[in-house]
Amino acid sequence: MVKINDNFLKLPGGYLFPEISRRVKAFSAENPPKPLIRLGIGDVTQPLCPAVIDAMHKATDEMSNKETFRGYMDDSSGYEFLRNTISEHDYKARSVNIGPDEIFVSDGAKSDCGNIGDIFSVDNVVAVCDPVYPVYVDTNAMAGRAGTVGADGIWSNLIYLPCTEANGFFPALPKKVPDIIYICSPNNPTGATATKEQLKVWVDYANAHGAIILFDSAYESFITDSSLPHSIYEVPGAETCAIEFRSFSKTAGFTGTRCAYTVIPSALVRGGVQLKSLWIRRQNTKYNGAPYVIQRAAEAVYSPEGQKQTKATIAYYLNNAKVILDGFSKAGITAYGGVNAPYIWAKTPGGIPSWGFFDLLLKKACVVTTPGAGFGPAGEGYIRVTAFGDAEATKDAVKRIIEVL
Amino acid sequence: MVKINDNFLKLPGGYLFPEISRRVKAFSAENPPKPLIRLGIGDVTQPLCPAVIDAMHKATDEMSNKETFRGYMDDSSGYEFLRNTISEHDYKARSVNIGPDEIFVSDGAKSDCGNIGDIFSVDNVVAVCDPVYPVYVDTNAMAGRAGTVGADGIWSNLIYLPCTEANGFFPALPKKVPDIIYICSPNNPTGATATKEQLKVWVDYANAHGAIILFDSAYESFITDSSLPHSIYEVPGAETCAIEFRSFSKTAGFTGTRCAYTVIPSALVRGGVQLKSLWIRRQNTKYNGAPYVIQRAAEAVYSPEGQKQTKATIAYYLNNAKVILDGFSKAGITAYGGVNAPYIWAKTPGGIPSWGFFDLLLKKACVVTTPGAGFGPAGEGYIRVTAFGDAEATKDAVKRIIEVL
Repeated sequence: MVKINDNFLKLPGGYLFPEISRRVKAFSAENPPKPLIRLGIGDVTQPLCPAVIDAMHKATDEMSNKETFRGYMDDSSGYEFLRNTISEHDYKARSVNIGPDEIFVSDGAKSDCGNIGDIFSVDNVVAVCDPVYPVYVDTNAMAGRAGTVGADGIWSNLIYLPCTEANGFFPALPKKVPDIIYICSPNNPTGATATKEQLKVWVDYANAHGAIILFDSAYESFITDSSLPHSIYEVPGAETCAIEFRSFSKTAGFTGTRCAYTVIPSALVRGGVQLKSLWIRRQNTKYNGAPYVIQRAAEAVYSPEGQKQTKATIAYYLNNAKVILDGFSKAGITAYGGVNAPYIWAKTPGGIPSWGFFDLLLKKACVVTTPGAGFGPAGEGYIRVTAFGDAEATKDAVKRIIEVL
Repeated sequence: MVKINDNFLKLPGGYLFPEISRRVKAFSAENPPKPLIRLGIGDVTQPLCPAVIDAMHKATDEMSNKETFRGYMDDSSGYEFLRNTISEHDYKARSVNIGPDEIFVSDGAKSDCGNIGDIFSVDNVVAVCDPVYPVYVDTNAMAGRAGTVGADGIWSNLIYLPCTEANGFFPALPKKVPDIIYICSPNNPTGATATKEQLKVWVDYANAHGAIILFDSAYESFITDSSLPHSIYEVPGAETCAIEFRSFSKTAGFTGTRCAYTVIPSALVRGGVQLKSLWIRRQNTKYNGAPYVIQRAAEAVYSPEGQKQTKATIAYYLNNAKVILDGFSKAGITAYGGVNAPYIWAKTPGGIPSWGFFDLLLKKACVVTTPGAGFGPAGEGYIRVTAFGDAEATKDAVKRIIEVL
């Protein structure tokens, strides 16, 4: 008799966004008084930029011709044209020495953040920030690293690193030493962005203990403060303790186009083994790489036109963030983030629970947000609002919220 | 100190195709007397058909427009337009009752065959055919289900099901009962294709023991004998014991375009849980779905033009298979497959080891094949030749092989 992976059964309820989707669908069925404005799930709304579209058309035409057709890649890690471009633009241009052989292209940071667990033993102790992107927790729970979950949503074997108003939403070192540490900056959901000095504390700590930092910088393109690091490898010593995840989803609107990459430096060795060699083996055995046309689309993000066009869209979203922050300020709501990040982390008024405030905004303002409690116990008392909406719709949403409050 | 997954260190050498690639590169560097002809890795050579190209252009244009742009899918299982189309054409048209809610779209059958292991306990006993597609073995070895590997390539905890000339390359039931059974038909690498009666034996056996069959039918579009099943669900009872993997890679030349799907019937329940619910949870947590443009490309395969065009390409490849089979016959080499499958499984002459015959054909005929031993111990004494080459090149390769022998 086949045995299922019982760890799956420990996962409480649905994944956060399907649960939101369920509530929104149920409310929509009740004929809401106004059209819904969605500032919940972190999905982009602006189309792919012309440079990317042109590259996709060109690559599609190549696939129609026997001479230029592309089948399997030699290995699943991505075409050299893309890995070289990423190395030059995202690293060497910032004086970070990450080569193309340390860059591994994929279909998404979510896939990579989940699949990276394959190369680590189930016995490692994992630390996550609280609040946290649910994927870090759920994937470890599935693998058996999280233990069991209590009614309070706390997993028995995880180390939680509270990120609160008091510590500026950046975690302090824990008492118990973890083996694997997830850090996301600019942060999802709080919008807080770590300084080099803040990251240095964790890099030194990880190196001292042989731990690994899994650094998610999917939102680095939203950083406006030039003193803040875009990559953890801007911090000396990170190359011997950190794996970095990047994505084109938010940088260039690829949420439905799917391309990302993971960086594992050659110097990152544990148990006498280069971790990148394990990842290459994992990917070559369980993955066949991102589509050729999509990798050409990603390459086009780095062209002069692509850079200009994608940066204009990011400025558009950051202006939404400003509109939201200003609106919350007028409504007397304390809010964080939104300056170097596309997320605004807003305190619920009068200590309303976050799912309650979510329901209130949904039903009274017809605005969809994300309840902070969905990101972990310390997310209670907050909602996450995203800047990825349409500019006019965002302005309307803010007006409605001010009216309701 | 972080601990790596030691199971990775048990894997011997490289994955088969990178090893072939290494030998071919080394030989190429020696200035071979003739241009190489590649009949090794099972990669297609013909371009995407016009119907698919048109659909990709159209979908790309949709991504350039705010009104028609697509971001995240509601869930990662694929767009309804594609799941409905697959259900209608690949199942209902063959009187098999598989609905869109039992079909899960992905980036590749290799990914799905590997990732499906996540939903099963590490404690299950796995049976694989011998010879076998290496992904089934390596992914289980990584997960810790295979035990340790001997110098003979045999893993201590796997059940091997020999597929030999004597049993027509279809496995007999084993003495020890497995929990998970991999069956691939049309078979990679032997080209053998199972009858309904042959599959029925395994379906009844799996249902009797609560085992699961992982059925890989990536090559079903090459079946020419109308009495042979394209899906395991053509066999009564399979819906309570089998998961099926399908791919557009060989059906429509998507090896560099990446789209596939997995079928998990609603009736497939173990431990009181629908297995599809575990897969949905796995995919929604660790995957964000195939790109929109790629799913539109896959949909176009089923249009009247797409069907006509892709079937013409399959006929082209099957003609190559005939050329290879005829050539081997002239050269006095016994060969199997190639009639309902794109693979020819040829016995090495005079009992030469398969890597030796691979090297001989590489160095004397400048033809790349795949050594049978790379697919498992019972593959020794065979090579796999693929029909995916260019027609002229395939004819040349056959001529060269005849000359060398």
